[in-house]
Amino acid sequence: MPSYTAPLRDMRFVMFDLLEAERDLAALPAFAGVDRDTIDAVLEEAARFASTVVQPLNAVGDIEGCRIDADGNVSAPPGFRDAYRQFGDAGWPALSCDPAFGGQGLPVLVNNRVYEMLNSANQAWLMYSGLSHSAYECLVAFGNEEQKRVYLPKIVSGEWSGTMCLTEAQCGTDLGLIKTRADAAGDGAYALTGTKIFISAGEHDCSENIIHLVLARLPDAPAGTRGISLFLVPKFLPDADGAPGARNTIRAGSLEHKMGIHGNATCVMNLDGARGWLIGEPHKGLAAMFVMMNSARLGVGMQSLGLAEMATQNAIAYARDRIQGRAATGPANPGKAADPIIVHPDVRRMLFTCKAHTEGGRALATWVAQLTDRAHAHPDPAVRAEANELIALLTPVVKAALTDNGFEVCNLAVQVLGGHGFIREWGMEQLVRDARINMIYEGTNGIQALDLLGRKVLHDGGARLGLLRKLVGAFLDVQAGDERMQAFTAPLRALDTELAAVSASVAADVGADPDALGAASTPYLRLLGHYVHAWLWARMAKLALDAPARDAFLEGKLATARFYFSKLLPETSALLAVIRSGPGSLMTLDAAAF
Amino acid sequence: MPSYTAPLRDMRFVMFDLLEAERDLAALPAFAGVDRDTIDAVLEEAARFASTVVQPLNAVGDIEGCRIDADGNVSAPPGFRDAYRQFGDAGWPALSCDPAFGGQGLPVLVNNRVYEMLNSANQAWLMYSGLSHSAYECLVAFGNEEQKRVYLPKIVSGEWSGTMCLTEAQCGTDLGLIKTRADAAGDGAYALTGTKIFISAGEHDCSENIIHLVLARLPDAPAGTRGISLFLVPKFLPDADGAPGARNTIRAGSLEHKMGIHGNATCVMNLDGARGWLIGEPHKGLAAMFVMMNSARLGVGMQSLGLAEMATQNAIAYARDRIQGRAATGPANPGKAADPIIVHPDVRRMLFTCKAHTEGGRALATWVAQLTDRAHAHPDPAVRAEANELIALLTPVVKAALTDNGFEVCNLAVQVLGGHGFIREWGMEQLVRDARINMIYEGTNGIQALDLLGRKVLHDGGARLGLLRKLVGAFLDVQAGDERMQAFTAPLRALDTELAAVSASVAADVGADPDALGAASTPYLRLLGHYVHAWLWARMAKLALDAPARDAFLEGKLATARFYFSKLLPETSALLAVIRSGPGSLMTLDAAAF
Repeated sequence: MPSYTAPLRDMRFVMFDLLEAERDLAALPAFAGVDRDTIDAVLEEAARFASTVVQPLNAVGDIEGCRIDADGNVSAPPGFRDAYRQFGDAGWPALSCDPAFGGQGLPVLVNNRVYEMLNSANQAWLMYSGLSHSAYECLVAFGNEEQKRVYLPKIVSGEWSGTMCLTEAQCGTDLGLIKTRADAAGDGAYALTGTKIFISAGEHDCSENIIHLVLARLPDAPAGTRGISLFLVPKFLPDADGAPGARNTIRAGSLEHKMGIHGNATCVMNLDGARGWLIGEPHKGLAAMFVMMNSARLGVGMQSLGLAEMATQNAIAYARDRIQGRAATGPANPGKAADPIIVHPDVRRMLFTCKAHTEGGRALATWVAQLTDRAHAHPDPAVRAEANELIALLTPVVKAALTDNGFEVCNLAVQVLGGHGFIREWGMEQLVRDARINMIYEGTNGIQALDLLGRKVLHDGGARLGLLRKLVGAFLDVQAGDERMQAFTAPLRALDTELAAVSASVAADVGADPDALGAASTPYLRLLGHYVHAWLWARMAKLALDAPARDAFLEGKLATARFYFSKLLPETSALLAVIRSGPGSLMTLDAAAF
Repeated sequence: MPSYTAPLRDMRFVMFDLLEAERDLAALPAFAGVDRDTIDAVLEEAARFASTVVQPLNAVGDIEGCRIDADGNVSAPPGFRDAYRQFGDAGWPALSCDPAFGGQGLPVLVNNRVYEMLNSANQAWLMYSGLSHSAYECLVAFGNEEQKRVYLPKIVSGEWSGTMCLTEAQCGTDLGLIKTRADAAGDGAYALTGTKIFISAGEHDCSENIIHLVLARLPDAPAGTRGISLFLVPKFLPDADGAPGARNTIRAGSLEHKMGIHGNATCVMNLDGARGWLIGEPHKGLAAMFVMMNSARLGVGMQSLGLAEMATQNAIAYARDRIQGRAATGPANPGKAADPIIVHPDVRRMLFTCKAHTEGGRALATWVAQLTDRAHAHPDPAVRAEANELIALLTPVVKAALTDNGFEVCNLAVQVLGGHGFIREWGMEQLVRDARINMIYEGTNGIQALDLLGRKVLHDGGARLGLLRKLVGAFLDVQAGDERMQAFTAPLRALDTELAAVSASVAADVGADPDALGAASTPYLRLLGHYVHAWLWARMAKLALDAPARDAFLEGKLATARFYFSKLLPETSALLAVIRSGPGSLMTLDAAAF
């Protein structure tokens, strides 16, 4: 069975050295009392909880899965409910929530590190509370006072959990096709009828109530996405004291049999005149849902980051331990029958790829968390606005690049273990199966790429991209005199020039042919992912080079940066060529001739 | 549930148009009676058997898996045994075997197309007979007359099946670490003792006897790979009439729980003084085993080709049927609520990638099958020798490139289906899980890459590579005057030049630093894979361009060739940069600092 050790050293390096979190938090009055000791203490306790309580349930969740009875009541796998209770009792769901609703008011920066650890330990388990925080954010932004008063404290305490109910059999990506309908009940509430599919944690026994956020149509709704409203539909209707009362008519019809995340209940949810309440304005449900969705997309990137960390550390441990063959340069371990496989260059290629994606992904995700705190809490509206623009630009990159890379990392870990990677016993194959969903849900990675290139880059004429390029350019200017940094700054500067040129040429192409957008989007997202990763790796290399003494950790950081630039960044040359080749070869063939 | 339609049109196109199989077979006297009608009839019957008998068992095999009782007897999933019997009764195992042993004497060219179909239908089922043909080839080459007389007819008829018993807990890649020992029994037989793991179809109830080919050490064996002998160890000892007699003491200890191929029994095999007979010379077992292994490696490439075909055709069908969103250029389907997703460029990117890998892989695998027939049966020893050299060069490419590409194809099919791809019902996620093993077993893809670059390219000073380049060069020379072919021939010629240069520079690097081999091997294999695919796609494009009338099939072929050159081949620029960056960034970090 795999084991998990939280990468606290790297988390601290990223937060305090790379991102200078102490200086940044000091500028945010809401976090005045949050110092490094506080953050360290929270992370250490989270590490203990993740590795000793949550991770041991990961394999059992995969093997046992969930059960549904004839009445549609779902039981989570053995141990999940108890761990969920400990999670709530310890106050973890409240970590970054507003004290006005019972939260602890800590930065998202810290919360995200905690979620990375819990995701490493057990994605399926964490998903029982995973959408609760997104539901919290949606209600904070769009709920009325009554909704906030009744629901937020229970969500913050973890007593009640949340879901997102969007997908129906005939609509996933295209929410304009939603059929679930909501009729006024006459008392301010609505009666919802329809069937939702693929609802993560749609029904279970971990929390005492489940708050469904449901997209549906009012009778007078315009067709398409402009006619969708958002409703709050609790499993149990709160009674006068705010306790779970009558059972609502939203029930699980069945559980899906899935490739992975077996421990999480993915439900078909039947709404049979279920009582619900409008969140926000009629027909404006999609805007409200997107507050939740953007938070969830960043969360999905964190899920794959967590799995990638788990895969990486177990693959490294195996490669140090497993002896097989001899180093090409002569026995490294002459006293034993063979050398550990970490002596082989091709094994190192796989391990370094794992490290580069995982540590680079952590740097990116942590930076976005820092931007989130700035966007929420900085006193200067211009700083808040800039942070929001960067988050908008980076959200699809975090979602898609981190989940694509995370899937590759989990697969490489299987490959390092060979046949042992393919069997259940070592736990690596489960990571591949769990990681696979992250490239699909909360908007497929293809949809992320369209969002990035269409809405985030082209739609504002490259303004958001310009903000990012300004940061990179400032870094490059500062490094100009440092010879040691040439190996990093020269390719980064070249990529910056290429990125600007290809962005402009795609913008021109899209003007002439709308299909140029979808032809370029996926390679463009990977290109921008490399751009951000290259910048972060160059900065991490700089910190390692400047350190008064380089210990093993910093040697590893510098070596991984060199690996990234020599072995992974060259993918950008292929991506640029693919983008420049345009839509021609994609669009001419008749659908029937495929 | 997915369905399977054998791609007979493409198989015929590759065999008869691309590879001119009729002309080629006419030069081989052993296949004098094999004409196009015969081949067509065999393929049509195989298509029927694969789609109606074998494919319907694929999901049940995955869901039910295998069972083992307290005595170590293993039952295959429901229906498997009956289908296996039909398979033998119809003569499929005998197809390309020598008539001297009851075979039908058809070309490997035909046999491989049949195996592709059966692999598409159900890899786990086919693996019960999958290694039998490899065992057949090993016994034909190294068995004594008695062994051939007793075992070959039963293997050819499918009554008895075969396994390869190599791996032990402490050794997979490094067979020099094998501990299983063989002691002379005094009557010409040996008593084998040890434990083998990961034995595919090691024990089951499909065939009436199982012939294990087991690597073990004689008491006087030198250490390492020079001290390994190969033994034939039957499950039941043949009696005087050649029928299964006394039960031998080789038994399944347990079944592995695996990511995929659930329908095949992957066994721990315990040998407790099991009776066996030496195959070939003492201490020369590895050479004999490699006859079997090379056949098996080509077979593994075929497995992933089969899965890729299944994934591709179901993804295309889904993309034509599923409506979601609108074409960027305006509604393609204005009468319906949305357009089929095949209108979207990014969906087409995924489908074309599937088609390009699958059809290109089929062309390559079929060519290698043709070379195999030539190597076995051509009257001119020089032609046989050249064919053997090309097979040696291409075997690791078929094994690794087709399994890497096949895994990507299956994953893309999941992605095209979105959430529906992740659930069991649609069958796409099983393909990913089944395809994952093919990158690992019969030598990991990393080992294939070392074999290719070290033994097949550098070891003979590039002679084998020169044979391949001569074929490509001859094609390029013929096309030089064809303007329509420029889009294909110009990049192919450029790649040919780069391949020659980078091969020479890696050879020089390896002379200076042995780790340069392992640093370059994996990207080099992908590079050579592209080189062969690009050549085959250019030739297929030429056929489509020259056709008097292009139907939908040929339009698809031409469009896929254009897609391959504009969207997939650019990966070579990244691969070249990665190869040229050398081992430096891989080797300096201390193992403890990872």
